[in-house]
Amino acid sequence: MSGRLVIVGLGPGAPGLMTHDAEAALAEASDILGYGPYLARLSPLPSQRLHASDNRQELDRARAALDLAASGKNVALVSGGDSGVFAMASAVFEAIETGEAAWCTLDVEVIPGITAMFAASARLGAPLGHDFCAISLSDNLKPWSLVESRLRHAALGDFVIALYNPASRARPWQLGAAFDVLRGILPPTAPVAFAQAISRPEERIEIFSLATADPGRADMRTLVIIGSRASRLIARPAARPWLYTPRRVNSA
Amino acid sequence: MSGRLVIVGLGPGAPGLMTHDAEAALAEASDILGYGPYLARLSPLPSQRLHASDNRQELDRARAALDLAASGKNVALVSGGDSGVFAMASAVFEAIETGEAAWCTLDVEVIPGITAMFAASARLGAPLGHDFCAISLSDNLKPWSLVESRLRHAALGDFVIALYNPASRARPWQLGAAFDVLRGILPPTAPVAFAQAISRPEERIEIFSLATADPGRADMRTLVIIGSRASRLIARPAARPWLYTPRRVNSA
Repeated sequence: MSGRLVIVGLGPGAPGLMTHDAEAALAEASDILGYGPYLARLSPLPSQRLHASDNRQELDRARAALDLAASGKNVALVSGGDSGVFAMASAVFEAIETGEAAWCTLDVEVIPGITAMFAASARLGAPLGHDFCAISLSDNLKPWSLVESRLRHAALGDFVIALYNPASRARPWQLGAAFDVLRGILPPTAPVAFAQAISRPEERIEIFSLATADPGRADMRTLVIIGSRASRLIARPAARPWLYTPRRVNSA
Repeated sequence: MSGRLVIVGLGPGAPGLMTHDAEAALAEASDILGYGPYLARLSPLPSQRLHASDNRQELDRARAALDLAASGKNVALVSGGDSGVFAMASAVFEAIETGEAAWCTLDVEVIPGITAMFAASARLGAPLGHDFCAISLSDNLKPWSLVESRLRHAALGDFVIALYNPASRARPWQLGAAFDVLRGILPPTAPVAFAQAISRPEERIEIFSLATADPGRADMRTLVIIGSRASRLIARPAARPWLYTPRRVNSA
């Protein structure tokens, strides 16, 4: 087949946090598909066709992109952040596996991007400087019992924990429940950072402790980072403290 | 203080995988510090001073960068990948916390980059498409017992696992020991991908199962990804299979 599908991560929002490869792939595309607000970030050429879709329609959007590519188009499918992290790349491969046999012969390329936890980490200092994990709190596609089990093991393993999709209007209680699981294992002093809309004009960062963190501070645009037992704050005069996790862990 | 320190992640190797912000920060620097091979990737201006150092001297290099910034220079400190992930940002904040009080008043900025696991994930398909963790197998700065505990909890929590620093000449046995821990918990069919020198001319990717993975295939330039119970391979005619982890996990 002659068509091509490129799955492109746009990064957290600021154009400066896109890669050259992502920009080049977008410039070459005949058709660009994505969730409306991501498409709104682009400056398409007059010759390019944009196809906006709703947030929840990942699998349909992936199939539409594969269909267009199979018809010979040069298709770009965009995600925020890194398209491989809780985003469109996985939906595309699911669509390929469960879809038309010929889709396996398409030229499919994934172009990585800066995912929210690294953009947030950079603003905070270096909280992900040691072993860490990323967990999506959305239970739309997995049972909540699995989320709880992962939170427990992440805390018992003393990983720094990045929580994606902590809250939305349809999922208001999950972050509070996650904090409850973690409070049973981690010390109350463990730092908890709320990083909202990083690199965008409405960026907001707040740091609490696990004992005082209010889950109501999170929304769809928030990434939450919970420190390990080793994570530390460095106080600064007249500025937010830096949060980092040292590279060294001494024997217990 | 008037000086400035920017900690810049260069990405996995290909210039196309750098961000605009990283490039802009490098262009503005008067002095650029880093491990020799990372500096060799740059095209410095005639006015810029390069300071190369050895791989193991992270804390000394961080202090030298802070010293230069404190003297009024515009300093860039470079890492491969993302400087916040097993790289220089954590060393800088450790140096600040344990160093001169005035360093807390410096203008320090971290610019994120594409870290090895996302570059590898993009080439493989979407193995990090669901909850995952990153563990450094280096026991230079932490006890091996902690590494084993994290591996156990990562496997019990059914995370996809990315292993950084799996092997070096000085650390030849750690990856084999890690596979032994994982074989006690994960199924022998769990996919194991070795991604070497991603985006560089010598790039090499191999996919095995946990039962057949040979730790001798890894070196300093290798990133190892071990799938969760949900991770899947999609066979392709005349090409390496795609590896991905679905977004959906059904109730047990």
